Amino acid sequence: MSATLVVSARWVIPVEPEGAVLEDHAVVVEGARIAAVLPAAEARARHPDAEHVALARHALLPGLVNAHTHAAMTLLRGLADDLPLMTWLREHIWPAEARWVSEAFVHDGTLLALAEMVRGGTTCFNDMYFFPEVTARLASQAGVRAVVGMIVIDFPSAWARDAGEYLDKGLALHDALKDDPLVTTAFAPHAPYTVADGVLERVRVLADELEVPVHMHVHETAAEVAEAVEATGRRPLARLDALGLLGPGLAAVHMTQLEPAEIRRLAETGVRVVHCPQSNMKLASGACPVAALQAAGVPVAIGTDGAASNNDLDMLEELRTAALLGKLAAGDAAAVPAAAALRMATLDGARALGLEGEIGSLVPGKSADLVAVDLGDPATEPVHNVISQLVYSASRAQVTHVWVAGRALLRERRLLTLDLDDIRARAAAWGARIAAGAGRPEEAEGP
Amino acid sequence: MSATLVVSARWVIPVEPEGAVLEDHAVVVEGARIAAVLPAAEARARHPDAEHVALARHALLPGLVNAHTHAAMTLLRGLADDLPLMTWLREHIWPAEARWVSEAFVHDGTLLALAEMVRGGTTCFNDMYFFPEVTARLASQAGVRAVVGMIVIDFPSAWARDAGEYLDKGLALHDALKDDPLVTTAFAPHAPYTVADGVLERVRVLADELEVPVHMHVHETAAEVAEAVEATGRRPLARLDALGLLGPGLAAVHMTQLEPAEIRRLAETGVRVVHCPQSNMKLASGACPVAALQAAGVPVAIGTDGAASNNDLDMLEELRTAALLGKLAAGDAAAVPAAAALRMATLDGARALGLEGEIGSLVPGKSADLVAVDLGDPATEPVHNVISQLVYSASRAQVTHVWVAGRALLRERRLLTLDLDDIRARAAAWGARIAAGAGRPEEAEGP
Repeated sequence: MSATLVVSARWVIPVEPEGAVLEDHAVVVEGARIAAVLPAAEARARHPDAEHVALARHALLPGLVNAHTHAAMTLLRGLADDLPLMTWLREHIWPAEARWVSEAFVHDGTLLALAEMVRGGTTCFNDMYFFPEVTARLASQAGVRAVVGMIVIDFPSAWARDAGEYLDKGLALHDALKDDPLVTTAFAPHAPYTVADGVLERVRVLADELEVPVHMHVHETAAEVAEAVEATGRRPLARLDALGLLGPGLAAVHMTQLEPAEIRRLAETGVRVVHCPQSNMKLASGACPVAALQAAGVPVAIGTDGAASNNDLDMLEELRTAALLGKLAAGDAAAVPAAAALRMATLDGARALGLEGEIGSLVPGKSADLVAVDLGDPATEPVHNVISQLVYSASRAQVTHVWVAGRALLRERRLLTLDLDDIRARAAAWGARIAAGAGRPEEAEGP
Repeated sequence: MSATLVVSARWVIPVEPEGAVLEDHAVVVEGARIAAVLPAAEARARHPDAEHVALARHALLPGLVNAHTHAAMTLLRGLADDLPLMTWLREHIWPAEARWVSEAFVHDGTLLALAEMVRGGTTCFNDMYFFPEVTARLASQAGVRAVVGMIVIDFPSAWARDAGEYLDKGLALHDALKDDPLVTTAFAPHAPYTVADGVLERVRVLADELEVPVHMHVHETAAEVAEAVEATGRRPLARLDALGLLGPGLAAVHMTQLEPAEIRRLAETGVRVVHCPQSNMKLASGACPVAALQAAGVPVAIGTDGAASNNDLDMLEELRTAALLGKLAAGDAAAVPAAAALRMATLDGARALGLEGEIGSLVPGKSADLVAVDLGDPATEPVHNVISQLVYSASRAQVTHVWVAGRALLRERRLLTLDLDDIRARAAAWGARIAAGAGRPEEAEGP
């Protein structure tokens, strides 16, 4: 196959090797995959017949991987803020979900999330929510890479009555997606405090059999850990360990409460951690000890969490916050340097999802998931250090182009596979519907 | 005088009273001042001859006040990152400043900062840097409100040889600005560890005489406090207290290291604190105890710090970080709620600069310093809560219009008083000059 696309940029940041910045280079794409990373002039000369995109003031990097979100919750963005996690969940979010979540809600909320994510340079997201088949279908249609969670939680929802039905529906989705090139699955038991041992055991067996990751909230708050210790004498992580869940297939999200022995155990067992700094700060949950985890050899990915807790899906801002909070939490300004933050949001994200052979860096053979960021903005000038500028100064509005598997999804900030006007109208309709219905007992209507 | 401008918006956020959101309201402007805040239809009917700007999807709010920056340091953005404060200052920033800072550097760096600030909704900044007369002139020409620091530091710079010359030049600038409607001065002794007692005493006497504020870095790091205790037996704040500097005229910047008795003393004396959360995180300096200060009655403003340490002048992101870090530092998700963060970035900023009678809220009689933010973006839809959306989800690229004293500076994101192409070319030239000259001893050339 010959080259189909050549994207040349002022700077190419391949993420591997870490810290590398290639000036005036190009990524050569054949179909869905990266064929080469070459000096731009050479790429142009070698591949005259390919489509050429030249980005004179831009950094070109691997697509950002949002390693933990609840995409459809965009529709609840800003509904309840400035509250502690359990009050927020039990008195606001869970009742709102019970009231409003439906197939139509997930449809429109996911579309809104896809628009926001693509415009912000996210090319892959790891989702945990109800009606994952809807999320999967929309991501696939929009050309966005996704890992959709086969969610399990010990209470009923509009999607499933009990753990058995959650798992059955999840497994049916897993089968339905087996030929999808972009969308895969992970088991997504909600959290230790909402899923019983028997269900977690079944998840472990199934995850081993099907070779899919497990995606779970773990040690999000001190209260969660204290309650478990009081009720069972054990910290949740010890319980997951006893259940055989600690391993390279586990993407453990949040992890703000970790003791040194637990960090060693995570490293030993190969667990991947997903850090959601803005959500943890906003809910005052604590700070994941990122520098200590990295020093121990634990890969730490970055997630935005859902837009009801963050309140956005802005991975550039999230990776900046990860760098800043990582330094503060470690008491060391050299902790989580810029290149490490960028790796966390790309290659470590891929690792958390078991996709490091496919995405996360600009390496021949990997999928052509690419993002261009225009650094020719007063906020990122002058460019003394490209990676610093990207991590500490750039904002999502500077993302100009996005490709996933060689397909263009965003060009000069225009969405090519999503209808922004339609999406905004749907979001506004839900805003009005929820505002009008707040507190009323009627069923949610679909659009 | 009759109304000259009527700006109507989907939502008007006056900041006073706190948390208020007025739907479909308008700000009526007469010349440089706010005449009224009225329902939009009424404002249109009453003032048919004024210029009308209608913003259908926008929030209209007081201009953001950046209460601490070093504007010209934009030219050093990203030059040295991921380093502790003292290494960063002593081995990188101070040598770079000794090498490069000149009138031309301050000219071009300030222009770049003005472009970035106006595009991000900042209408007033409190600056501390060399050649403040250059900063003052450019701010005035661009129509941006500024408080320029009469900087004093116990070592020579390209601007002044010693404390005496710093103060003489500062006082000359103060006189020169006495009729400027937008630009005022503050004394700006750099920090307790860089300014001797005698100079601080003179600053106090002069500040009292001239009735101008004092703007100073205080208790930025634990090391700074520990070194002072070791050398003198006293914490820097106690020294400033003994020198008579604690009072409503002091804007004490950073303040990451505070004991409960110190917080009480700040409240007693009326000191204003300026919080720079991203800079403090990036340099691992610590977290200002914002919630505790506010509970004690100390007004806390927000500053971005200079772009060499932050690395941007993005006040929307900074106020978001202030809310998030405030919750984390207090261990309380209800701390620093959205409306408080917005007040910190507007009215409390005005208070820190002694300008609360002039700016900081949309109240008749105050200056018409206004910012419009377009909330019709996938990242801020749906709008369940306007202030939440603004604080937790909006980004600077959504700032569409800016007015200062009734004069339009930004319209549909176009800068009206600054030449962006020229500014970017100047910034790029400095980038090239610094890259080529790093380590060389020659004098910097002006553009």
